[in-house]
Amino acid sequence: MRVSFQGEHGAYSEEAAIAYFNTDAEFDPCRSLREVFDKVADGRSDNGVVPAENSIEGIVTQTYDLLFTTNIKIAAEVIHRIRHCLVALPNVTLSNLEVIYSHPQALAQCQNFLEKTGIRSIAANDTAGSAKMIREKSLNTAAAVASFRAARVYDLNILASDIQDFPENLTRFFILSKDASEPTGNDKTSIVFGVRHEPGLLVRALKEFADRGLNLTKIESRPVKSRPWEYHFYLDFEGHQRDSNVRETLAALEKATSYLKILGSYPYQAATRGSP
Amino acid sequence: MRVSFQGEHGAYSEEAAIAYFNTDAEFDPCRSLREVFDKVADGRSDNGVVPAENSIEGIVTQTYDLLFTTNIKIAAEVIHRIRHCLVALPNVTLSNLEVIYSHPQALAQCQNFLEKTGIRSIAANDTAGSAKMIREKSLNTAAAVASFRAARVYDLNILASDIQDFPENLTRFFILSKDASEPTGNDKTSIVFGVRHEPGLLVRALKEFADRGLNLTKIESRPVKSRPWEYHFYLDFEGHQRDSNVRETLAALEKATSYLKILGSYPYQAATRGSP
Repeated sequence: MRVSFQGEHGAYSEEAAIAYFNTDAEFDPCRSLREVFDKVADGRSDNGVVPAENSIEGIVTQTYDLLFTTNIKIAAEVIHRIRHCLVALPNVTLSNLEVIYSHPQALAQCQNFLEKTGIRSIAANDTAGSAKMIREKSLNTAAAVASFRAARVYDLNILASDIQDFPENLTRFFILSKDASEPTGNDKTSIVFGVRHEPGLLVRALKEFADRGLNLTKIESRPVKSRPWEYHFYLDFEGHQRDSNVRETLAALEKATSYLKILGSYPYQAATRGSP
Repeated sequence: MRVSFQGEHGAYSEEAAIAYFNTDAEFDPCRSLREVFDKVADGRSDNGVVPAENSIEGIVTQTYDLLFTTNIKIAAEVIHRIRHCLVALPNVTLSNLEVIYSHPQALAQCQNFLEKTGIRSIAANDTAGSAKMIREKSLNTAAAVASFRAARVYDLNILASDIQDFPENLTRFFILSKDASEPTGNDKTSIVFGVRHEPGLLVRALKEFADRGLNLTKIESRPVKSRPWEYHFYLDFEGHQRDSNVRETLAALEKATSYLKILGSYPYQAATRGSP
């Protein structure tokens, strides 16, 4: 069993993948989110694990755009706690440090901690990649902001942990598959739709859910790239697409929208602890 | 009159500022969007110009988060066409180039063109900053993806223009002010609100607009950073907050929401051509 994720070994996506699949699978690092989708589509991988949304930063727009343009299904969700660590080579201390590397979003999420250290931070492509670089180039005046797993993978010391500004920093990951998931009795469904640009049409579409007591858990809009200031709406709601009230709602929505696509029905996932 | 924007001279934000204010103002480059908001708040600048949304990429989340946390008003909007150029020192040709610098988003928007050249691209902090660096360090095997204005400011040649994948690449900028704008008869209003997490409450809030025939032109959600998976909703709709039907709708919305803030009423802006 092969599971693809974006980033280097030690990425938060790999942590989430391990939390979901345990360690039986082969975890396959990819250079881009597109590569993850491509590998699931052509069968090189059984599943993909991609970040959908962070509780501080909001949605990962590229993931939503790829769900729109491909036929990959959301087969499950994993909520994973992001616990940023400052990692460095053994024997390196905070007072040795001249520079801290990480992905700009990780640096931004640890702004309070980083400002207190007064050490210069430099943007890099990713968190685990920064940890890997420190190990490979034996940088002994540098540290990286990365995961517990990155510290383990590259045999680095953890100088400080949980250094993120908001202690409750959660990322929701989608488990991707070519196949739809069976109902479990406690499911969510994700869809994307468009409406003609007329007053009241969006509200009319949303009312189909309210009228049937279906709870919307999320609504997002993304631009239609070829038509400025037109949008597609991404909705999550409670229920499985095989439930009768969901089927009824989706049939009504077909009529109320100009475009409708089901991205997947999948079990609700409670928050995981995050490693270790 | 002083107008602040984020980036170096030659940034797309400065192009938009010039399109709106003409050239009578002093255009003040800032290191961050926060600095732009701060300068408007404490009177160091009369106005700020910040990107709100791009027709390909979607909203600029930091701008929306700053509108939420400050009391700065949206006083106007400018729609500006983004026309990416490949710029280099005079006498440098495409065949001399070893590397192309720009902001990752600009590089992503020119992916088709860049792949055809086969030249390595390197991420930098901003578009105009990349052009400036080429001039200051006399890099004669490098080019930057930047604006027409950046080419003029740093006296660089334009090797290719309109190299973006989607020809219609528009950015909507907000003009920031401490003061609210007067009605013109053709206005929009932007608000942000929250609702308790219960089925139907978002639809109930949106229905207040539909019931009064007020056209929603945009809806976005942003996470409540301190409460995972709760959201604030940003809405644009037609009308000025002093119009009677808008006042009535906002009064009803006060009751239907747990939080409501008006970000500004301002005149509708037709698309500008983009420079030159």
